[in-house]
Amino acid sequence: MARADEPSKASLADRYRRTRRLTCDLLAPLSDADATLQPHPDASPSKWHAAHTTWFFETFILRDHVHGYALFDEEYPFLFNSYYEGEGERHARPNRGLVSRPHLDDILAYRAAVDDALLSALPDLSPKVRAFVELGIQHEQQHQELFLTDILWTLSENPLLPAYTEGPPQVTDAAPDMRWHRHDGGEVEIGHAGDGFSFDCERPRHRALLAPYQLADRLITQAEWAEFMIDGGYSTPSLWLSDGWAWVKENGIEAPRYWRRSDDGEWTRFTLAGERPLEPGRPVTHLSYFEADAFARWADARLPTEAEWEAAYADRDPSRGNQLDEAGAVMPHGDDSPYGDCWQWTQSAYLPYPGFEPEAGTVGEYNGKFMCGQFVLKGASCATPRGHSRATYRNFFYPQQRWQFTGVRLARNA
Amino acid sequence: MARADEPSKASLADRYRRTRRLTCDLLAPLSDADATLQPHPDASPSKWHAAHTTWFFETFILRDHVHGYALFDEEYPFLFNSYYEGEGERHARPNRGLVSRPHLDDILAYRAAVDDALLSALPDLSPKVRAFVELGIQHEQQHQELFLTDILWTLSENPLLPAYTEGPPQVTDAAPDMRWHRHDGGEVEIGHAGDGFSFDCERPRHRALLAPYQLADRLITQAEWAEFMIDGGYSTPSLWLSDGWAWVKENGIEAPRYWRRSDDGEWTRFTLAGERPLEPGRPVTHLSYFEADAFARWADARLPTEAEWEAAYADRDPSRGNQLDEAGAVMPHGDDSPYGDCWQWTQSAYLPYPGFEPEAGTVGEYNGKFMCGQFVLKGASCATPRGHSRATYRNFFYPQQRWQFTGVRLARNA
Amino acid sequence: MARADEPSKASLADRYRRTRRLTCDLLAPLSDADATLQPHPDASPSKWHAAHTTWFFETFILRDHVHGYALFDEEYPFLFNSYYEGEGERHARPNRGLVSRPHLDDILAYRAAVDDALLSALPDLSPKVRAFVELGIQHEQQHQELFLTDILWTLSENPLLPAYTEGPPQVTDAAPDMRWHRHDGGEVEIGHAGDGFSFDCERPRHRALLAPYQLADRLITQAEWAEFMIDGGYSTPSLWLSDGWAWVKENGIEAPRYWRRSDDGEWTRFTLAGERPLEPGRPVTHLSYFEADAFARWADARLPTEAEWEAAYADRDPSRGNQLDEAGAVMPHGDDSPYGDCWQWTQSAYLPYPGFEPEAGTVGEYNGKFMCGQFVLKGASCATPRGHSRATYRNFFYPQQRWQFTGVRLARNA
Amino acid sequence: MARADEPSKASLADRYRRTRRLTCDLLAPLSDADATLQPHPDASPSKWHAAHTTWFFETFILRDHVHGYALFDEEYPFLFNSYYEGEGERHARPNRGLVSRPHLDDILAYRAAVDDALLSALPDLSPKVRAFVELGIQHEQQHQELFLTDILWTLSENPLLPAYTEGPPQVTDAAPDMRWHRHDGGEVEIGHAGDGFSFDCERPRHRALLAPYQLADRLITQAEWAEFMIDGGYSTPSLWLSDGWAWVKENGIEAPRYWRRSDDGEWTRFTLAGERPLEPGRPVTHLSYFEADAFARWADARLPTEAEWEAAYADRDPSRGNQLDEAGAVMPHGDDSPYGDCWQWTQSAYLPYPGFEPEAGTVGEYNGKFMCGQFVLKGASCATPRGHSRATYRNFFYPQQRWQFTGVRLARNA
Repeated sequence: MARADEPSKASLADRYRRTRRLTCDLLAPLSDADATLQPHPDASPSKWHAAHTTWFFETFILRDHVHGYALFDEEYPFLFNSYYEGEGERHARPNRGLVSRPHLDDILAYRAAVDDALLSALPDLSPKVRAFVELGIQHEQQHQELFLTDILWTLSENPLLPAYTEGPPQVTDAAPDMRWHRHDGGEVEIGHAGDGFSFDCERPRHRALLAPYQLADRLITQAEWAEFMIDGGYSTPSLWLSDGWAWVKENGIEAPRYWRRSDDGEWTRFTLAGERPLEPGRPVTHLSYFEADAFARWADARLPTEAEWEAAYADRDPSRGNQLDEAGAVMPHGDDSPYGDCWQWTQSAYLPYPGFEPEAGTVGEYNGKFMCGQFVLKGASCATPRGHSRATYRNFFYPQQRWQFTGVRLARNA
Repeated sequence: MARADEPSKASLADRYRRTRRLTCDLLAPLSDADATLQPHPDASPSKWHAAHTTWFFETFILRDHVHGYALFDEEYPFLFNSYYEGEGERHARPNRGLVSRPHLDDILAYRAAVDDALLSALPDLSPKVRAFVELGIQHEQQHQELFLTDILWTLSENPLLPAYTEGPPQVTDAAPDMRWHRHDGGEVEIGHAGDGFSFDCERPRHRALLAPYQLADRLITQAEWAEFMIDGGYSTPSLWLSDGWAWVKENGIEAPRYWRRSDDGEWTRFTLAGERPLEPGRPVTHLSYFEADAFARWADARLPTEAEWEAAYADRDPSRGNQLDEAGAVMPHGDDSPYGDCWQWTQSAYLPYPGFEPEAGTVGEYNGKFMCGQFVLKGASCATPRGHSRATYRNFFYPQQRWQFTGVRLARNA
Repeated sequence: MARADEPSKASLADRYRRTRRLTCDLLAPLSDADATLQPHPDASPSKWHAAHTTWFFETFILRDHVHGYALFDEEYPFLFNSYYEGEGERHARPNRGLVSRPHLDDILAYRAAVDDALLSALPDLSPKVRAFVELGIQHEQQHQELFLTDILWTLSENPLLPAYTEGPPQVTDAAPDMRWHRHDGGEVEIGHAGDGFSFDCERPRHRALLAPYQLADRLITQAEWAEFMIDGGYSTPSLWLSDGWAWVKENGIEAPRYWRRSDDGEWTRFTLAGERPLEPGRPVTHLSYFEADAFARWADARLPTEAEWEAAYADRDPSRGNQLDEAGAVMPHGDDSPYGDCWQWTQSAYLPYPGFEPEAGTVGEYNGKFMCGQFVLKGASCATPRGHSRATYRNFFYPQQRWQFTGVRLARNA
Repeated sequence: MARADEPSKASLADRYRRTRRLTCDLLAPLSDADATLQPHPDASPSKWHAAHTTWFFETFILRDHVHGYALFDEEYPFLFNSYYEGEGERHARPNRGLVSRPHLDDILAYRAAVDDALLSALPDLSPKVRAFVELGIQHEQQHQELFLTDILWTLSENPLLPAYTEGPPQVTDAAPDMRWHRHDGGEVEIGHAGDGFSFDCERPRHRALLAPYQLADRLITQAEWAEFMIDGGYSTPSLWLSDGWAWVKENGIEAPRYWRRSDDGEWTRFTLAGERPLEPGRPVTHLSYFEADAFARWADARLPTEAEWEAAYADRDPSRGNQLDEAGAVMPHGDDSPYGDCWQWTQSAYLPYPGFEPEAGTVGEYNGKFMCGQFVLKGASCATPRGHSRATYRNFFYPQQRWQFTGVRLARNA
C-alpha cells in the first residue's frame, strides 16, 4: 500500500485528475461493443477496467470514509469487484465479457460521479485515507496498462484485424550491436524503503549477495528472434524447460504471440495499429517466460535475477524511456533506458521478501496471495503510464502468459 | 429447399420486405454491444443473425445470379457463413462473440444495400432463383426465432438480469384440466407433398402405421412441473434415460432452464421481459428432451411420436396460436392451438424419411447432415414467425439442448 | 428378459455350464495383469467381465431366490454391479482398471462357488426364476463378446502389440463381386413374439411399411475401404454427417480403428492375433456409424434401416456364419450368412417399438434406459457366441464407437 | 551427477547390490497386476520403476561403455525411458499403466541380467563411468521412494483398500509441546561442495544472507491438523494463496490426501498398512504446499526458506531419523531428527543456484529442466532410503502435489 509521507511534486488532486482523464482518453477510440468484449478469462473488458478502478475509489474511500455517500448503483459492487474475497460475492471473472449493460455511457457517468465526490472530499481526508487515494491512482495505472494489452488481445480475435488507433510509421533500421556491461555484484540492497509510494511486496528493503555478472545493454530484437526461429528454436526440446516444452507442444507454439505467417510466407505482427511487418531492429515483445528462457539458453546466456536487474539499474531514472504518456497505438521502439519498451523477464520467482508483511485489511489481498508459480518482471513497458514504475517495482506473471509487452534482456556470469 | 410452384397470397417481394423488416424491428431494443455478445457456442450474436441472413441472399442470389453484383464487403463472407463447407473457410462458430466490428450500423447498412439490390433484381429472376429467395425468407424466419432465444440467453448471463423489452402483465390463473383425445391410428400419410414451401427433410410424403393413441389437449404447465420437482423428479434415477441422468448429475440440473430459486425460496423464471414469478397455468418451456421424457415417465405417459403428432394435427390451422407477429418479449400464454407457445418434443429421432434426397448444391448442406443424435419437435413456439410452421415441419435439437421454447405434450397408448 | 416357455434342445443346466466354461476358456490366455487392465471407460477389464456376470447370477438368483445363500464376498456387489441404479452404490466405471485385487484366481474361485450353488439350486427353481437363469446366460454371452473386443483394445495399447492368441493364416484372396438383392417391401412384421428368449426391447412384434429396396449380398471389404481412403474419403466433408465430420477433425481419424500405417507406408491392422497386413477380400471392421454412413454416401448407396434388414433376413438361420464357438483370435473371414463376421450398422436409431414395456424390476434397467442417441446394428459378429443372435436382435452403440466388430452392408432404393 | 572422488565406506559394488536388492524386496508383496497399475499420470507402475532403473544402468553404462554388450530386449528402451528427450522416442507417460506385458517375472529377469553384466564389468570401469554407476544408485533410491508413494496411491484407488503389508501397531500418544529454536542468521553457505555425491542442482555452494529466525523443533501433528480443520481452515479464503484457494474449490479439498471421513463421522487415513485411525501425536503427511502454507498462516507463522532450513540442520546427521531401511509399510512416527518422517515444504522456489551448470550430456536433462513452478522440500521421509539424503538435498514438487510423504515444519522471524 501507499507510503506517501512526502508530497509529490504534483498535488494529489492533480495526479488523480490526470490519471482519471487518461483512462477516459484510452476509451475514446472504442465503441461500446469494443469495450464490452473479453477475449479470455485472463483479460478484462475495457468497460470493466474503467468501472473497476472507479469501484476501488468508491469502495475504499467514499463508502468507507465519506459520511453520507450513497453508492452510485447498488449492483455495481457485485459487477466490478475483482478478487477481493473480503468484499463479498462478485461476478465470475470468465463471464465479464457478457455484460453489455450498463452501457459505456453509464460507466462514464459513474466515473464522473465518483470523481466529483472524491475531489470534493479530498481536502478533508485524513493522511491515511489520502494514502488510499494514492493507492487507487497506482491501481488505476496498473489497469491502464492492462487496458491496452487486453484490447490488443480483443482486437486480435477479430478476423478483420482492426486497429485500435493509427500508429507510428514503420521502421526498418537495424539495432546497434548488443554490448555487455559488467557489474561487480557483492552485497547489495534491494527492495523499497523510505519515502514515495510502493506496494507491500516491494518491502522490506534488504541485503542480497550477488556474484559478478553482466547485463546486455539493450533488449533482444525482432530480427534476433527471427534468427532463433530459423535455427529451430521452437523445435529443439533441449532448449526448453520441461513445462515450457509441454506448453509448446500442446499449443502448437511457433512464434511470439501476435506473430502470424501471412499467405506469402512472411511473418507479420498484430499491433494496436493493426497488422504490420516485423521491425527488425525493434524489441521483440509478447513472449512467455518459457520463450525468454529458451532463447537465453540458445544464446549461451541466461535471464537476470531480480536482484541483478535492480542493483544494476537502481540509479537510472525510471521516468525516462518509451512509456505511456497519452492514449494511442503504443509499441516498442528501442531505447537506451532500461525502463520502457517492454517488461523484462527475470529468472526470479515472485515470492515474499524476508520480513514481508501484507498490508492490513481488504486492500492487503493485493499482492501476497499471488506469490506462487509466477516470475518477476522488471522495468516498464510502452504501455506503463510514465511515473508508475521504479527500480523496486515487481511485476509478475505466470510463465506461459504473454499478452503483456514482455521481452528479453540477457545476462551472464562475469 | 423451396417448392414454390404456386404464388402465395402475398407477393414474394412483399413477403421479403416484411421478413426483412421484422429482423430490423427485433434489433431495435438492442445496443450494439447487446447485439455483439455470444453467450455460448450454441447461440449466436444478434448482429451475426442479422448479417448471416443477409449473406445468404447476397451469396446464393446476388453473387450467383445477378450479373455485375459486387460484394458489399469482401470480408463478410468469411465472417457470416454459418456452416456451409462448400462455401469455403469461415469464422469459427465459438468466436462469433468477439467481433465488435463491423458496428451494428454497418450491418444495418449491409442489410439495406442487399435489400435494394435484391428487390431491384427480383422481377427478372428465374423461377428457380425465386425459389432461392423463398428459401432465404424461410431461412431468415428460422433465424428470427433463434435471435429471440439467443438474446434471452445473452441477457440471462448478465447479473443485472436486464429485460429485452417490457412484457405482458403477469397472470395467475390455473390452466383448465388436461383431457385426452383419442386417435385411431392405422395407416396414415406424413411428410410434405404438393404445393407450398417445404424443407427437403420433410419429403417425401409417405405412409406410416400407427396403433391407436391418445394426445393431451394442452401443454404441461408450470404448476405441473413444480409438482414434478416437489415429488423428487430431478433426484429419481429410474425416471431418466441413462444419458439424461448423467446430464442431470454432471450439470447439477434441478429445474428448467431460466428457473432460479430466489433468496426467499420461491422459484422465478427469467424471460425476455426480465425476471418474473412463475405463472402456474401457463406452459412450462425451456426443457431438454431428457426432462420431457422423464416427466412423461413420472406421469405414466410418454411423448408422442412425430407421426402421431402430425397425423393428429394435420388438419389444424398452423397459422393460429401464440406465434411471433412483431418484436417484443414473447412468452407462452397457453392456447388451444397445437401450433404456438412452445415446440413439443417427440420421441422420434431426426432421421431421413424413406426416399429422402438432399437438395442439390451447397444449399443442400442444410438439413441432411444433421440427421444424427437429434430429436424432432413439432408445432411452433411464441418465437416462431407466424406463417413459418406447418404440420410437416420438422424442428430438431439435441436431447440436452433447452434454450429454445420447448415443452411437453403428453401421449399414451389408447 | 427371458421368455423361455419352451425347453431348448439343450437343457438349461447344460447351456449354463457351457456358457460359464467358455468365459473361463476366454480367460486362459491371459495373465492376472492382462485381465486387470481397462483401456478406456467404454471397455472393462476381463476380470471384471468374469466377475460381473457371476454377480448377476449371484444377485438375481441366489441372493433373491435361494434360501440361506450367503454372499461369496460382501464387498463384491459394490465392485461388480455395472449400472443397475436399483442395486445401490457401485464402483465408478472409469476406475474399474485400478482393481488388482481380488486376484484372477479369486475371481475363478468366485465363479466356481456360484456355479456350484446355482447348479445345485437349479432343479428346484420356479419357472420365473429359471427365466432369470436364461437371462443370465444371455447376459454372459453379451459379455463374452465385450470380453474379446475389450481385450483387443487393451492389447492394442501396449507398444509391444502382443497377441491374445495365435490366429488363422493370412489370406490374400479377393472377395467375389458384390451383387444387389431386391426386396419388395410392403407391410412387414418385425420384432419378437412367441417362444424363445428375447430382450424386452425386441418386443412387441409390430407391423412396418417398407418401400422396395435392395441389399448387398456381402459386406464391404478391406480392399474397398482402402479405395475409399485413397479417394479422399476421410478428407471430404460433404460425405459426412456434421457430427461425424467434427469427430474426424477432432480425433484426427484417417482409417478404421486398429489400422496403422507402418514405417514402410503400408497399412496394417491390429487383431487378436497381433499386427497383420490387410486381407483385401475380407470384411472391414471396427468402423463407426459415421464412417459407415460416409462410405455409403461415397458409394451412392445408403445404410439399410433396421426393418429392411430384419425383413430381408428373418428366414435365414441365425446360427450359421462366422460366430464364436471357442476361445481364440477370432476375426472376420467373409461368409454368405448375414449373421457373423461383423455387426452391420443400420440407419435406425435405437428407440422403443410402439407399445414397448420395459421388464419390471431391477433387471428392467437393462435396455430402455439406453434409448437415446444410439444406432441399431443387426446380424452378429465373429465374437458373438453362436446361438446368441436372431433376426429380431437389436444391438446398439453410439455413432462414434468402433471398438466392436462393426462393418457395412449397403442398401439402396429399388 | 555424481562426484564420487572418495570411496564411500561400503564399496560401490556392495552399495549397488544392496540398492538393487531393496527394489526386489519392495516388489515382493505385490502381484504382477498390482505392479502393473498406474493410478495417475504423476505416478508410475511398480514394474515400471523396477525396469526404468535397470534401463538407466543398461543405457548409460552397459550400452555406452561396455564393449559387446547386447540389449536385453530391443523394445525395452522405448518402454522404459522416462523423459530423456536426448534418448529418443518413448512411451507416453500417462499410458504406462496399460502395459501388462512384459510380465513382472520378465522384469525380474531383466534386472538379474543387467546386474550380472554390470557387476562383471564394474572392476574395469573408468572413474567417470563408475560415477555413472553411483548416479544410477542414487537414481534408483529416488525411485524406491516413488515406488512406495505410487503403490500407496494405487492401492488407495481400490475400493477394498488393501494393505501393501502389515504395519506397526497403532499409537495414541500425544506429541511433546512444540518449541522454537532460534538461529542467528547472518551470512551462511549453502549448496554442495567437496567430496561425496550430489546432484547438479545442489551446486555450486554459495553464500546467502539470513535474518535471525526460529524453527519449530518438531513437525506438525495429525492432532494439530485436525484443529486447523475444525477451525475452518479449509473454508477460510484469507488463509490461502489465490492459486491454493482455487485448487481447494475446484477439487473439493477438505482434508489431507488419504484422510477420509468414515460412516461414523470419524476421520481415518489410508496407509501402506491399510486404513487406520488418526494417530494424534504423529506427523501429518501428504500435504500440498498450498495446505502447508495456509496452515502456517493460520498458526501465525510461516514456512522456512530453503537456506534457513539448510543452515539450521547442516550439522545434524542425515542418516538418522525415520527413514527407509527395508521393505514394509513405512509411516511417520515422529522423531527428533529433522531428517525422516516426511519432507518439509519450504517457501523457496526450485530455481538454479547462482552459477548453476547442468551436467553435460543426456544425464544432464535430469534436474535443470524442472526449474519452474515447483517448491523445494528439505529433509527426508520414512520412504527415503537411508543414506540417500543430506542437508544440501533439494527435493521439489508442484504446489498442488501431495502424494509424497510431505509435511510441515514451521518457521518465524526471530
